[in-house]
Amino acid sequence: MSNTEARPLADAIRFLAIDSIVRAGEGHQGVPLGMAEIATALFTRHMKFNPADPQWPDRDRFVLSNGHGSMLLYALLHLTGYAHFGIDALKSFREMGSTCAGHPEFEPAAGIEVTTGPLGQGIANAFGMAVAEAYQNARFGDGIVDHYTYAFVGDGCLQEGIGQEMISLAGHLQLGKLILCWDDNQITDDGSTSLSISEDVSARFRVAGWHVVEVDGHDLEAVSAALVMARRDPRPSMIACRTVIARGIARLQGQRGGHSGKLFEADSEAARRELGWPHAPFDVPADVLDAWRSAGRRSEDAYRAWQARVAALPAAERAEFERIQAGRLPDGLREALEAYQRRAVETSDAQAGITISGEINDLLVPYLPERMVGCADLEAPTGHKRSLKAFTTSDRSGAYVHCGVREHLMGAMANGMAAHGGVIPLAVTYLAFSDYERPAMRMAALMGLPVKFVFSHDSIGVGRNGPTHQPVEILASLRAMPNMRVFRPADAVEAAECWMIALEHRSGPSTLVFARQALLMVRTTHAAANLSQRGAYVLAEAEGGKRRVTLIATGSEVALALEARARLQAEGIATAVVSMPCCEIFDEQDAAYRASVLGVGTARVAVEAAVRFGWDRYLGERGGFVGMPGFGASGPAEALYEHFGITPAHIAAEAKRLISSHEG
Amino acid sequence: MSNTEARPLADAIRFLAIDSIVRAGEGHQGVPLGMAEIATALFTRHMKFNPADPQWPDRDRFVLSNGHGSMLLYALLHLTGYAHFGIDALKSFREMGSTCAGHPEFEPAAGIEVTTGPLGQGIANAFGMAVAEAYQNARFGDGIVDHYTYAFVGDGCLQEGIGQEMISLAGHLQLGKLILCWDDNQITDDGSTSLSISEDVSARFRVAGWHVVEVDGHDLEAVSAALVMARRDPRPSMIACRTVIARGIARLQGQRGGHSGKLFEADSEAARRELGWPHAPFDVPADVLDAWRSAGRRSEDAYRAWQARVAALPAAERAEFERIQAGRLPDGLREALEAYQRRAVETSDAQAGITISGEINDLLVPYLPERMVGCADLEAPTGHKRSLKAFTTSDRSGAYVHCGVREHLMGAMANGMAAHGGVIPLAVTYLAFSDYERPAMRMAALMGLPVKFVFSHDSIGVGRNGPTHQPVEILASLRAMPNMRVFRPADAVEAAECWMIALEHRSGPSTLVFARQALLMVRTTHAAANLSQRGAYVLAEAEGGKRRVTLIATGSEVALALEARARLQAEGIATAVVSMPCCEIFDEQDAAYRASVLGVGTARVAVEAAVRFGWDRYLGERGGFVGMPGFGASGPAEALYEHFGITPAHIAAEAKRLISSHEG
Repeated sequence: MSNTEARPLADAIRFLAIDSIVRAGEGHQGVPLGMAEIATALFTRHMKFNPADPQWPDRDRFVLSNGHGSMLLYALLHLTGYAHFGIDALKSFREMGSTCAGHPEFEPAAGIEVTTGPLGQGIANAFGMAVAEAYQNARFGDGIVDHYTYAFVGDGCLQEGIGQEMISLAGHLQLGKLILCWDDNQITDDGSTSLSISEDVSARFRVAGWHVVEVDGHDLEAVSAALVMARRDPRPSMIACRTVIARGIARLQGQRGGHSGKLFEADSEAARRELGWPHAPFDVPADVLDAWRSAGRRSEDAYRAWQARVAALPAAERAEFERIQAGRLPDGLREALEAYQRRAVETSDAQAGITISGEINDLLVPYLPERMVGCADLEAPTGHKRSLKAFTTSDRSGAYVHCGVREHLMGAMANGMAAHGGVIPLAVTYLAFSDYERPAMRMAALMGLPVKFVFSHDSIGVGRNGPTHQPVEILASLRAMPNMRVFRPADAVEAAECWMIALEHRSGPSTLVFARQALLMVRTTHAAANLSQRGAYVLAEAEGGKRRVTLIATGSEVALALEARARLQAEGIATAVVSMPCCEIFDEQDAAYRASVLGVGTARVAVEAAVRFGWDRYLGERGGFVGMPGFGASGPAEALYEHFGITPAHIAAEAKRLISSHEG
Repeated sequence: MSNTEARPLADAIRFLAIDSIVRAGEGHQGVPLGMAEIATALFTRHMKFNPADPQWPDRDRFVLSNGHGSMLLYALLHLTGYAHFGIDALKSFREMGSTCAGHPEFEPAAGIEVTTGPLGQGIANAFGMAVAEAYQNARFGDGIVDHYTYAFVGDGCLQEGIGQEMISLAGHLQLGKLILCWDDNQITDDGSTSLSISEDVSARFRVAGWHVVEVDGHDLEAVSAALVMARRDPRPSMIACRTVIARGIARLQGQRGGHSGKLFEADSEAARRELGWPHAPFDVPADVLDAWRSAGRRSEDAYRAWQARVAALPAAERAEFERIQAGRLPDGLREALEAYQRRAVETSDAQAGITISGEINDLLVPYLPERMVGCADLEAPTGHKRSLKAFTTSDRSGAYVHCGVREHLMGAMANGMAAHGGVIPLAVTYLAFSDYERPAMRMAALMGLPVKFVFSHDSIGVGRNGPTHQPVEILASLRAMPNMRVFRPADAVEAAECWMIALEHRSGPSTLVFARQALLMVRTTHAAANLSQRGAYVLAEAEGGKRRVTLIATGSEVALALEARARLQAEGIATAVVSMPCCEIFDEQDAAYRASVLGVGTARVAVEAAVRFGWDRYLGERGGFVGMPGFGASGPAEALYEHFGITPAHIAAEAKRLISSHEG
């Protein structure tokens, strides 16, 4: 197929995009019109995929990192024959409920590998997919896992810090099966890229160790040749495709308005004349559609051969491969965690929260070989360096990715791993620096990906490193995020319970937060049930009469609440302590359970070494809060708790104040 | 002064750091020991500064971006004679209340230019300072503003995305007075940098257009020569200083433990023997201290000459310079905003929130030449491109910085500008992407910097771009942040009021959030007072009897609440509408005012096209909420409001449900 023969295929993308955008009244034509030849080259000659089985585990992955150009993806999925993308779907572009949403929304069964739009996320996801592929390839071999990850990327993604982090680390790790096609159109939403960048982008990639090829992005043959070179090169590849934004719309092409300037019927008609496309809107001539559908079937042989190889695997290996693809936990894991809890109760040693998390993670290692850990320049929270090999250029069997001081990439890498499947990703750093990866955490929540975001140094307990390193508002800000579960366990038993819940939770991310300082054991008897499973529970019921006070605490403050309870009980005030390791799960419980935990008609005091924001929903009109009034300070942890009044004495005093003002 | 003569000066830094860290029992010795010669070269030969007047507006700025090495800064401030850093301050390193906090904490009167610790922030602040200098230099000339900005930086800052964003844009803008000294010690907290980076860092800077010099960081003469070259070169400069981390501590130097491995008395004694430093802890010999103090006085002539030049300025120019240094608003500004409000009431046109913000910002231009705007690849929210010139390599008088798609750098740049002084910085992007700059917003709040963070596209009103672009949790997450005011005005009048409050607020940042869609006028009569000044107020009081319902709303939902009120009043239910443009200010009001606004014993319904998280503190036990249950969706804005039930009908129904369940 020559450039001339391929031209109608590329134009089919162009006109489906134009027609859908004109019909919707808005959209971003810049990418689909500018990258039509590149997409045609990739999908008709190189991509390994099967529209009949969009979730084929060994398919090549395709990420449209410049997600605003969503019509490019939808047109490709339509033309190659994905069931969810019939012509009616395209006609409903940007309508409520359409599969063709404004930006691509994660739906692997439909052929959408990942939600994109926020710039830089997509290429960092692609990086994570390439890491997951390399790791699985090392484990299962070329016959079972051996695919490329392709990403289309615009200038915005590369200007973003996360994009730069990705360039640096992908080069370091020499991820040879990661291939980017850069839409070098010299235009961003703001105008010419020359407003804000002068550097030679190709040179920047080369400095980081990438293989770079520069081509005319409208020359399909040249792009295809570059893809061949890219696939052969052991380095990650960046194909710099010089393109004209919105090519085909004479009024806008090559200009700022090409990005998303409104398209009118007249533009569509002019483009049809210009490009010699006499067909009606949404009408793709049969020969062109046939050529595309045949491209959609080009991997059928490879698909069948792969199925045969999987079927021929030894039974145990096949079962294991299928287990991790399905995301099922192995037998024995629950029992191992329960045994850990039992031991913790028996020894009843206070231990640093991060040590506890490290122990639990070490314990998981033999059970979950599919788990991968990304770590941003520290090892404390999971202590994995002890028990996991590093994932390196020369050894892809390591499950521990040294991400460097690149939290944002780490989070988005984990999302890409989870979207890839076959891997359980963890991302680990200090809680204070969760803000650096927050945009990626939001994407995990939005996509419903089962990523485990793990954090240490969860409060002023950090001590002398001071307020920059002390989270106070971060628990609240994460709890505000839809579909994000935030766990803050009080001791080793709750930690194991929360890890079990997080590992079983598949429809969204979990955040697990651990103290740097020692956590006293608050669970002093072994319980057969997972008490954290309802989000909050009565840890110590009131004694000597009807409950008058409920103290609600999380994490390291649960032990303080227990001490406060002892003081109150000694004064004859019947007081219960509620431990609330996960607000989000508690909020899902029925009203009767919630009332039984929080207490009806009691005074309630919440205790958390963080801001009050978000706590009032549990406090009612007789509520108090003991926590942080604002940012922390630099000083020893004990001095800070004293200074900010997060003490048993103050908790007890607050409870008594509430009682006297209401009962009295 | 030769290397030999300077050695005791550098060692004075080393041993003050060692002594303070040993005494505190913890700290990060890697930087002060590794960068002692670099710091000595800079402070004894190049820096323009005056310990007797730490806030001299034309001083060179010094940023310790690798802020964990705080003892380097404290030792320098002590040795050069800053009043806040007597030897007792050093002896209290890391104690509660010490000026020598774990990480440097913003205190310009003491000589600390900016809080650092979270990696990458410091060099991005330094970038902002260099932009502010260039802008002020263009306005006031070399005689009044002409200084360098120096930053020390470690590997972590350069791995962070924000650091990479800075490299790219500083190179593009050719900020020749920005000079970095890179502590190239090949070690991070995680171990060798080779774990996570392979690229040639100097080459990466050169690609971006920087001047790079590579030197032995322990050769003071070589460093000093490089600083001379750096100051002369028109490009921004990066001096790559090859160093040995923790140099002087034989047990740790050049190794991972050098970063912050615990130091013992024995290490201190061994270092004293090794380096020939027989002096007692905290004892700096008189000749060495004299040499340092004399370095502290080296800019005295320059200081007096500068004072004379300022004194000789024409009166009006001098007054203007002093006004902007003091951060005072000019006469006439308030009146101009009031006139705008009056016009808005008279015309009573519904306008897009972003258009309103743009109009107000255009109006500010003649009054506030000290205002600078950083914009991340869009112009809509302030529409400044209309009214401001771009700040470019060839024209430093432009107040509009095209930041490219680099939100994180933009935010930290604004912080650096505010810390620099003489400039009022704004940073503008979509609210959904505030997460990308959130770490910088946190630093603004922590430092109490008067940055204005401006956002558009504040809700599902974004419509068809879908949930990636629709903030739902972001208002809550920003309200959770201490010392951050979040404004969400309901119409043009409130917008002008909120801008006035934000401009007058000097002790912390303000976030201003605008709708993309049209805002109906809810303020239909002109009020002499700024009604937004108390955070919330009764916009429409209940009529026809005692108030039974309070509807509390913000932004675009205030108009919906007014419609709901009309329905309820029509049914004889006395209903008030409260507009709450700023929760944080309302929370500071006295209890009586708050009760009078929220209503006592009434049903209360909060209405906001965002999550409920944080609203319960206003709702009491008879509260309802009409807003978002989770993430949004892709579809027309009106359809989304209908779909999620954020409608007058639903608000009224919720109010009636509450009434019937409680009154009935």
